[in-house]
Parts: sequence; C-alpha cells; structure tokens
Amino acid sequence: METEISSVGEFGLIDRLTADLPKINQSTVKAVGDDAAVIRYEPKRDILVSTDMLLEGVHFDLTYVPLKHLGYKAAVVNFSDIYAMNGTPRQLVVGLGVSTRFTVEHLEELYAGLRLACEVYGVDLVGGDTTASRAGLVISATVIGDVEEGKAVSRNGAKPTDLICVSGDLGAAYMGLQLLEREKTASAGRKDFVPDFAGKEYLVERQLKPEARRDIIKELAEAGIEPTSMIDVSDGLSSELMHLCKASKTGCRVYEDRIPIDYQTAVMAEELNMNLVTAAMNGGEDYELLFTVPLTAHEAVSRLKGIRVIGHMSPEDQGCALIGRNGEELPLKAQGFTHL
Amino acid sequence: METEISSVGEFGLIDRLTADLPKINQSTVKAVGDDAAVIRYEPKRDILVSTDMLLEGVHFDLTYVPLKHLGYKAAVVNFSDIYAMNGTPRQLVVGLGVSTRFTVEHLEELYAGLRLACEVYGVDLVGGDTTASRAGLVISATVIGDVEEGKAVSRNGAKPTDLICVSGDLGAAYMGLQLLEREKTASAGRKDFVPDFAGKEYLVERQLKPEARRDIIKELAEAGIEPTSMIDVSDGLSSELMHLCKASKTGCRVYEDRIPIDYQTAVMAEELNMNLVTAAMNGGEDYELLFTVPLTAHEAVSRLKGIRVIGHMSPEDQGCALIGRNGEELPLKAQGFTHL
Repeated sequence: METEISSVGEFGLIDRLTADLPKINQSTVKAVGDDAAVIRYEPKRDILVSTDMLLEGVHFDLTYVPLKHLGYKAAVVNFSDIYAMNGTPRQLVVGLGVSTRFTVEHLEELYAGLRLACEVYGVDLVGGDTTASRAGLVISATVIGDVEEGKAVSRNGAKPTDLICVSGDLGAAYMGLQLLEREKTASAGRKDFVPDFAGKEYLVERQLKPEARRDIIKELAEAGIEPTSMIDVSDGLSSELMHLCKASKTGCRVYEDRIPIDYQTAVMAEELNMNLVTAAMNGGEDYELLFTVPLTAHEAVSRLKGIRVIGHMSPEDQGCALIGRNGEELPLKAQGFTHL
Repeated sequence: METEISSVGEFGLIDRLTADLPKINQSTVKAVGDDAAVIRYEPKRDILVSTDMLLEGVHFDLTYVPLKHLGYKAAVVNFSDIYAMNGTPRQLVVGLGVSTRFTVEHLEELYAGLRLACEVYGVDLVGGDTTASRAGLVISATVIGDVEEGKAVSRNGAKPTDLICVSGDLGAAYMGLQLLEREKTASAGRKDFVPDFAGKEYLVERQLKPEARRDIIKELAEAGIEPTSMIDVSDGLSSELMHLCKASKTGCRVYEDRIPIDYQTAVMAEELNMNLVTAAMNGGEDYELLFTVPLTAHEAVSRLKGIRVIGHMSPEDQGCALIGRNGEELPLKAQGFTHL
C-alpha cells in the first residue's frame, strides 16, 4: 500500500506517526501534541541533552539501509551519548525532513524503528517536527536524559596515570559498511542479485543495528566503579582518545595487541586487503564506551565482562600514541568527519 | 576572507563557532564540548523541550535571507514555542548540515545570529552537531526551557466560553515574504538591481527577523492572568485556532473586524491584489501568541498593551468559524505545511 503524504496532510501524517505512543517514564508529563513537551524529573537530578543529525547520502544510503533500521539507529546513537555521560536517556524528540518520494508507509517504517529503540531502551518519544525536504531524508534526533546530581561523567576528568578501558570490540561497524558497499556495487544493474553476507552477519548487524551500551553503565555502577572520563566511540577510537586527552590535558598510550577485534572483522579486513588496526582505530560507528578509571580500579575493572583495558593515560607532553606489537610508537591522528 | 571548512576540519570548525560562548543561566552546568550538555534547574520546575527544522529551499532562500538573520530566526522560532507554554527558554542545541559551498565565515555569520538571539533572550547555546550535507543548509534547533511546576499552559485547557486573544498583528511576515519574492524576481539577471523596500520595512523585518513574545508572557504574569490555552502563530491564525479547538474540544468564533493588521500589511495586500483577511488568517510566521482567557478576565486583558480580543470559544458542535463584517460565517480551514 502506498499513501501519498499530501493525501493525509502534515497534521494527518503526524497523527498517524505518533498514534498510541506508550508512556514509559514517570517523568514524561506531556508528550507529542503541544508547542513543547513537558518533563518533570525527580529532585536532585541533572538533565542531559544531546543531538545528532543524519542526512541521506552522507550518513546513510537507502539502497541498503532499511528505514526501520535507520529509525532504530537514529535513536540509539543518541541514547549512546547519554550513557557516555553516565546517564539514562528518558525522552526523545525527532525532527524529520521528507521529500515527496516518501510515502506515509515509508515514514511509518522509520517510526517503527524509532519506537522499537524507545521501547528497548525505555525512552519516551515526546515530540518532533515534520517538514518537507527538497533533498532526501533528514533526521535530527535530540535526546533528554537524567543522572544523579553531580554524577555526570565528562571527558575532562582523566588523570595521567588512569587506565583506559573500552567495551565490546571495534571496527566491525566499519567493516559492515565496506561489505554493504561491496555488495551494492556488485548488485548494480542485476535484478536477481542476492547479497552474500554468509559468515559476516555480525558486521552487517553492527553497521545497520548498533546498540548503545546501557549494560556497561549498569555493570560499572554495580561494581562501584566511577569512570574518571568517558565518551562513546562514534568517530573511531583514535579520535575519541584524543578528545579525552585534550579535555583532560593528558597524553595516552594504547597497545595494539590490546585492541578488541572480532574474528569476522579480521576476516573481512583480510578479504579487502585493508589494515585491520587502522579499521579498528579509525572505523567509527562502534558506539562502544571508552572510559578511564584510576589505577586502583584495575582489579575491579578487569573482572568485568566485555571490558578490556587497552592502555593508560600519560602526561600531556608525551602526546597520544599507539604502541605497536614490536614496541614502536605511532602518534594518533584526529579524524572527525571527512565528508566536507 | 574565505576559509574552506575542509582546511580547519570538523573539530576546528566547532572550536571556532563555539569559542567564548557566554553562560547566562545558572542552570547551565556544562555546555558545548562533551557527549551531552548538563543542565540543573531549581527544584519545583518543569522542563520544556521543543524542536524545529529549517531546510534550505523549503523554509528559506539564501538569495535574500542573510545568514545572520537566518541564525537569529532559527533560534527565535524555537524560543517562541517555549513562551507559548508559558515558560522561559534557557538552553539551545543546534544541529547543522552544511555543504561544501559554505565557508567557515558563512557559518560564523549564521552563528552570530544564533548568538545574538541567545543574548537577547537570555539563552545559553549548549551543544550541537555539525555535519556535511549534500543538499544545502539544514538547521535543526532544539530548545530547553523551564516553567514553575504545573504552570505550563497547554493547548487543551480552553472552555467553550473563553475569550480568544492574540498579540501584535498578523499577516505582515507573509506579506514580507511576498515582497522579498517579488524583488527577487525583479532582480533576476540584473547586477545593479537595488530592491525597493521603502515604506515596507516593517514587513521585511517581520519576515527576516521575527521576535518571540517574551514581553506578553511577562505582561500576563504581572497582570495575574493565566491563559487557559495558548499556542504561537507559526502556521497562520486559522490553523492555530483549530489546534486549540481540537485539543480543547471546543468550537470558536473570531471576528474579521477584530483581526489586528498593520497598515503596511494592508497596503501590500492591495498592491498585490491579494485578500487581506486571507493573508492575516493563513499567512503564518507571525510568532505572535494566541491564547484564551476566562470571560472573567475580559477587563484585565483588555487593559493590556498589544493584546486584542478577537473572538470567543464556543461549544464543539458549532465548529470553527470566522464571522465576516456582515455577520456571515466562514468555516476555518486547517493549513499546515503545503510543501509536500
């Protein structure tokens, strides 16, 4: 079924997309349907706000990204920013720019993904703005969360002797992107083409349906470990390490043989003849948590599942470096977006 | 001077745009430079959140909208949503999508407008996301504000006997747009063209540099008047009236001869051979406040400067109508965006 957006109008569209939204959080007083959402947190809570913009042709390619996955990812990458502050995401507002080639059903798919992410992470979709676009799909998501007063973990609290830890594994999302791009190229002009993801399902999932590491925040809290600085890995480990070091006025040493890499990532890098460590250091979109803990927390953090100590902070004048398998020092490079 | 964005990189760009941001509000704990902004409101405050997206070619035309004005407007239209809830805007986050044709200096102009609006309205710019765009300029602004607990004014509190009030005058921003479009057409291919805005400065200003009605919120509070419902006029009076009526489950009667219209608006409508009342009812972008008060507040509200009583709510089954100068009833029509 294909319903043109013009046939339901702006307000009809919004009504359809936001019908029967659940209310999960006590703090959500008023959701969609007014000039602003109303939120009421418990006393002694700090409020966290983060925003992300995803643009078609820059951040996603709809030839291989299903709209439902896209909605899910747009929400989750925002939630990840709140976890990276040691907080809990509670409310989400979404701005959408849509061109006429999208139908109501397309946007319902996108919203199904947003709704699923909100359900999984316990977040309320409380508002948004839907507008026309002449230039493909634009998604802007802003998340609001909370944390115990004074307990937000910033980027700037690391000491030169702190240990550097990272959750999960790195580089898989980037390799998933390479794989999807390869299959897209292979499929060009072939109607009966079936992409081959056998044995690489993890890579595709990491790219298309990333998860935010709520579990790690919970694990750390239960173990009584307070990170001294934290950031989520969206642009790549190298870039995020440099953010922590710059904000904390430290240098760092991370060890190549400590970087957690999945088997599928390694196989894919081999197939594509790409440098595996480069992919893991600069790949981006892993949405793992990178954080520092005091040396005294070494034993406690080592006991935790899915967390790897990959190096340590150092005095600022030593700079940021990756230590190779033979002890050689490779200076880290900032990345950031390279689209411009 | 023209500095290519690629020459400073993403992080260099953000550093330049966000350098020396002032901190106006006590509630701003941590602004730009982390995964999320941190906000701490006083106890017994409700939090308000609203978001708006502006897309080049849909919401603005850079051939006649200066970037500084655009930044100002992007912020102000968001602030307006918070005032329309009876709240105070405190923090702003801005997502930007920019294509390679923009230079660092262009974005500094845009930010100068955002900064100015924040300064004028006492809001802190606390975060954002800057990314590449393949499709012109994209601006997504999300504002966070606060209001005394339980004192947010929604759209749904009007009673069938309430009076309908509006601030300022209507239709001028729309006429400003018509004027700018006319001069753009006239200038096509003429290098030495000087647009003629003589005697119509107010219209141009209403379109390019709208203001949010903070003063009205203050006035109402000082007079002890609590609106029963409120909304800001962004899509046009007609459409906003229908929002209030739908949410409040009422009908309404507004009187043509009570609609506040500026002299310049009337002159311009005459020149363009357009229906003046249609422009005032459906023009949009006025950012005036439309609200209802109990009948008992008639005298108090009539004493206030810059507020006009334009009609009254009515039972739901009577529908929404404009009463013409000869007593004829014209049913109101919803508009919403017509870009799609």
